[in-house]
Amino acid sequence: MRDFSRDHRFLSINTATVRKQGDLLAIIDACARAEIRAISPWRDQVAAVGLDRAVTAVKAAGLELSGYCRGGMFPSDAAHLAEMRDDNRRAVDEAKALGAPCLVLVVGGLPQYSRPGSAPSKDLGAARIMVEDGIGELLDYARSIGMPLAIEPLHPMYAADRACVNTLGQALDICDRLDPARTGFLGVACDVYHVWWDPDLFAGIARAGRERMLAYHVCDWLVPTRDLLLDRGMMGDGVIDLKPIRAAVEAVGYAGYAEVEIFSEDWWARPMDEVLATCIARHRSAV
Amino acid sequence: MRDFSRDHRFLSINTATVRKQGDLLAIIDACARAEIRAISPWRDQVAAVGLDRAVTAVKAAGLELSGYCRGGMFPSDAAHLAEMRDDNRRAVDEAKALGAPCLVLVVGGLPQYSRPGSAPSKDLGAARIMVEDGIGELLDYARSIGMPLAIEPLHPMYAADRACVNTLGQALDICDRLDPARTGFLGVACDVYHVWWDPDLFAGIARAGRERMLAYHVCDWLVPTRDLLLDRGMMGDGVIDLKPIRAAVEAVGYAGYAEVEIFSEDWWARPMDEVLATCIARHRSAV
Repeated sequence: MRDFSRDHRFLSINTATVRKQGDLLAIIDACARAEIRAISPWRDQVAAVGLDRAVTAVKAAGLELSGYCRGGMFPSDAAHLAEMRDDNRRAVDEAKALGAPCLVLVVGGLPQYSRPGSAPSKDLGAARIMVEDGIGELLDYARSIGMPLAIEPLHPMYAADRACVNTLGQALDICDRLDPARTGFLGVACDVYHVWWDPDLFAGIARAGRERMLAYHVCDWLVPTRDLLLDRGMMGDGVIDLKPIRAAVEAVGYAGYAEVEIFSEDWWARPMDEVLATCIARHRSAV
Repeated sequence: MRDFSRDHRFLSINTATVRKQGDLLAIIDACARAEIRAISPWRDQVAAVGLDRAVTAVKAAGLELSGYCRGGMFPSDAAHLAEMRDDNRRAVDEAKALGAPCLVLVVGGLPQYSRPGSAPSKDLGAARIMVEDGIGELLDYARSIGMPLAIEPLHPMYAADRACVNTLGQALDICDRLDPARTGFLGVACDVYHVWWDPDLFAGIARAGRERMLAYHVCDWLVPTRDLLLDRGMMGDGVIDLKPIRAAVEAVGYAGYAEVEIFSEDWWARPMDEVLATCIARHRSAV
């Protein structure tokens, strides 16, 4: 297991963590000042400044990417299918332009939430089939461009509206079916917030292996959690036993960044430099 | 699958559903007026009126019980172990006095939340071992009294503070280890709120079988869910596809009550008779 206590060379900042304090260019500047080596930007933040300017700024700052957020939202009715496909191909293209190592997929839940305007359904099983079909189709395109896809299982509390892939095991079943050769073009993004509770977590990490462990995200689970979406904790402030999870992820050969992704009204209310300094300190002490 | 559309003979009311509108005696009266045949009371509501009065009122109203809530909260440090054991044995005794068909177990999460005052821990795996040890010990006592224990897997969002058994499969693994002979003294309480998202839900129900399907609880999952604890929905108001789940539960031979358990500030703010009338209507149309 790598020693994170002495520096933060393996820290990446998911730009949603400081999304309310500034635009992507301001975040890139602040990360450069803090000697942070990598970021994982969101599409809306890239779109707000323009893809070309984002690409230029990332290169000028000498930043790497640990991922690009996000593709997905596959379930849709027939009327929204073309929109969904085009949108996901654009996400692959943007990830490529930015030099991301993978496109993170938040796969979507029921069609009415995944692609608003779609006919409402309560059929979660059907949504899961749409997800697998959608990933299979996107995978052909992503492979042709050379962009790996990382399925991010989301916490079961998001099953209806954000992602109906809710465990590592479920994500890996999809990987096994769509990429049995383990080519490296399909894998998982393992975010502790979503998977820490899973009794099969460590089995899932081992099963993923090096080829399928494409990204590793950290934050913490607060007790009490006051909001389903916007009350994630800073590493060390919650109940997740982080180090054994990273040890398991590294034991399969993962040597990439530990990406901090915190959606929190509390942390969004603090100055960007303070949040980044805290991420660095906790990366060294708690991750 | 039973036809619920013509009457509500298989409806049970978990008394937490109307806990803010009156005490247990008032709830029993209201259920009798509404020709509801069964309830599932909580220990604090029984304690508030006294066990003897509760027993008398249940019998006088001709009510059955569909369960008794709740034993559990097993994880604890050494200093709280005796308290935990005694508390759970009393819960078994009360369930017996009230004529409950099973004692529902909410197994507890990390020790500091399960038994307040216990030394804090982040070791969820250790908590799970404490749970299994605690159930094993309580099972001997419960068997001697003749009271089945129903492990209720809780939604993963409660893993830290309420229950670290979070899927039907995990609960059934415990049942297999502690009661391999399937004696009927150890099983599960299947609450749709907690398990609806699980890709292995239908496999879990089939695996439980008649001997281990001890209780069936219904409500609904709202989108958005504004509070992790107190924003459950009335059946039909959310996204859970209820009928296929009940069909699967009945397909293994379950012929008991469908127990309505809703923790909701919205429904607690309405008159008790209105809530019960809505439960009856939705039992007939949506469950």
